[in-house]
Order: sequence, then C-alpha cells, then structure tokens
Amino acid sequence: MATKTAPDSSRRSERSRRAIYDAALALISEIGYSKTTIEGIAARAGVGKQTIYRWWSSKGEVLLEAFLDLGERNAAAAAEAAGVDPADARHIPDTGDLAADLKYVLRATVDELSDPAFEAPYRALAAEGMVNREVSERYVEKLLEPGLQLYAARLRAAQEAGDVRADVDPRIGLELFVSPLAQRWLQGTGELTHAYVDTLVDYALNGLSPR
Amino acid sequence: MATKTAPDSSRRSERSRRAIYDAALALISEIGYSKTTIEGIAARAGVGKQTIYRWWSSKGEVLLEAFLDLGERNAAAAAEAAGVDPADARHIPDTGDLAADLKYVLRATVDELSDPAFEAPYRALAAEGMVNREVSERYVEKLLEPGLQLYAARLRAAQEAGDVRADVDPRIGLELFVSPLAQRWLQGTGELTHAYVDTLVDYALNGLSPR
Repeated sequence: MATKTAPDSSRRSERSRRAIYDAALALISEIGYSKTTIEGIAARAGVGKQTIYRWWSSKGEVLLEAFLDLGERNAAAAAEAAGVDPADARHIPDTGDLAADLKYVLRATVDELSDPAFEAPYRALAAEGMVNREVSERYVEKLLEPGLQLYAARLRAAQEAGDVRADVDPRIGLELFVSPLAQRWLQGTGELTHAYVDTLVDYALNGLSPR
Repeated sequence: MATKTAPDSSRRSERSRRAIYDAALALISEIGYSKTTIEGIAARAGVGKQTIYRWWSSKGEVLLEAFLDLGERNAAAAAEAAGVDPADARHIPDTGDLAADLKYVLRATVDELSDPAFEAPYRALAAEGMVNREVSERYVEKLLEPGLQLYAARLRAAQEAGDVRADVDPRIGLELFVSPLAQRWLQGTGELTHAYVDTLVDYALNGLSPR
C-alpha cells in the first residue's frame, strides 16, 4: 500500500478512512477522474484536507486504495454469500476439474462486473488509465496483474496435473478466456453472460481446430 | 456515414473537410474528448462553425468520422506499403493457411496500434466510450463490430474448409486471439509484439489442453 504513514487503528480514524473512500468512489463515478480533487473528496467526506494528506500524497493514491478496498469488501461479501472462507476467495479453486474451476470464477466475475456499485468507479478508473500512463501503471501493478497471476497459478497447477500442455506459457494462455470478457466489458462489444464465459473456457482449453 | 448532407465534391470543400478532421483528431489527442468542442475544431481548422454544422450535427459525429477516415487512410497506406490493392486490405487474406492469415493481419494490427498518429486519438475515443454509452454504441457499430466481422467471415470460410470445428461460434471464437491484443493495448497489461500474436493464434486454434 502506498500510504505515507500507517494510520492509527482507532475507531475514529477508521471511520474517517471509510468516509474518504466512499467520497472518492462517489465523486469519480459522478464527475470522472480528472474533475475529482482532494478538496472535493475532503468536503464530501466531512474531513479536513490535512486528514487526507496525512495518509496519502495524491488523489491518485486515494482513488486507487479506495478501489482496492472496494474490491476486497466485494470479495469478502461474495465469499460470505457463497459460504467460503474469505481467504480462500483470493485463490482460484482447484477441484481437479480445470474447466469447472475456471467457469466458476469467470461466472462470479461476470456478476461482479454487472454490479452497479462496482461498475461506475471501475469504468472511470479504466478510462483514466487509457489516457494517463501513471494511473495505468499503478492500476496494472496493484490491481490487474495480481488478479491475472491467480489464473496463471491455476494453469501452472493444471500443467503439473497434465491438463494443460507443458509448452504453454500460462501468462499468455490465461488471456484466451480472461481478455474476451475484459474487452466486452471495456468496449461494449457483446453481452456478458454465464453461457458466454462457459463457451470461452471450452474454446480456450480445446481450441478452435478439429481434434 | 452520419453526414447531414452530402458535401459537394469541389476541391475546396474536400480541403475544408480534411482540415476539420485533422483539427478534431489533434484536439481530442491533446485535451481529451470532453473538452473538445465544435467551436474549438472550427477555430483550429480555420473554418466557420457553420461549415461544420452544414455537414455534421454534433461533435461526436465529427470525431467518429475523422477517426474512420484516419483508419481508412492508414489501411490504404499499409496496403500500398505492402504492394496490395487497398480494396483487398479490407478483407482478411484467405491463402488456405488459417494460422498464417490470422498472424499476418494481427501483426499488422500490432504495428498500427503502435503508430503514434493513430494511438492518441484512438485512446481518447476508447476512454470516452468507457464512460459514455452513446459514444460507445456508435463506436462499436461503426468501427469495432465491422472489424470483428472480417475475422468472423474468415473463420466461417475455415469452417467450410474443415479447419475450424463446425460447432464453433465464429463471433466468439475470434475473440480468443483478438481480445487479448485489445486488452493489452487498452489496459497496458503486457507487451504487443509479433511473437505474442503468433502465440495467441497457435493457442486459440489448438487450445491449451493436450491433444
């Protein structure tokens, strides 16, 4: 995390932190990344500007951490709803059935990407990342690449089990089922359904050519 | 095309049209979609606002057509450089070798996406499409989907030739090699090289599982 100083753990500062995250996500959704300012976030959160500058050095840091926090809360809520340990929700399940495990996670991703609380700030952050290299690099490093590495780890386990060819580069292989979902969401080139991601997994594992 | 009235074909109006397209692309690259205005485009192009309103009814239409025109000029230049008829450059070649044909087109796409003249306006348009549904819908209809349909047509021809399984949906199958490239370019999640797109085509056609 890119905090300047670790916040103390009192309930009061935790409450301020939550208010700041909520204000940051609301503003980026409503007025976009470029118009959101530290001053605006402070005013909406009902805290002084100095409270924000004590913990973060730029609006980019506040927004990225607010977004990471939202992702963690979403994941924890999804894990609770599914009755699994939140710690396990950070991994892709390995039941021994690679196709089923990938479909399970990609279906959950479809549901998350359709969640309005998540969609507006995520779109605003992704749009800014397209035209702002600094935002893009932090976003990839902190958010996107760690997510992709979970798929790479699952494909490596599948290679050890003989379910994926040994000559496949897992970091590229995962893109065959993750990137189509990403492009449809980013560019609106098609519907996102459970049936669609199931088809992607089948095509990616078995290829398009006759066997 | 979404022009209000067909422009006359005099050299003078063709020159104005080119100046307007150039001004629109320069402004969207420099200051972004939301700050670009019809007034700003007119001032930069050295034409009156009414000249623009005679041909287009909104800045969205000017920008989309400027971008489509840029794409056509790029394609024509690439065809000339490759010594092929520009009309043929609108199709994906069918030499009978599906993998080679796809690699040829995707390598050219990598080169185009790395061209600075193309990159800045394309990024600005894609970023706006992420947060503006009207822009997104027009962009998909006029630009993205027609491009994707070229791949779908090539996959259908490959199905007839027995090189792609008959049960594959070409519109989804094409995303296995097109979308990874798109996501890397949109989100900066990895390098774009000829070797990378070659690998995508091989994985997509043959799958990740052992044969």
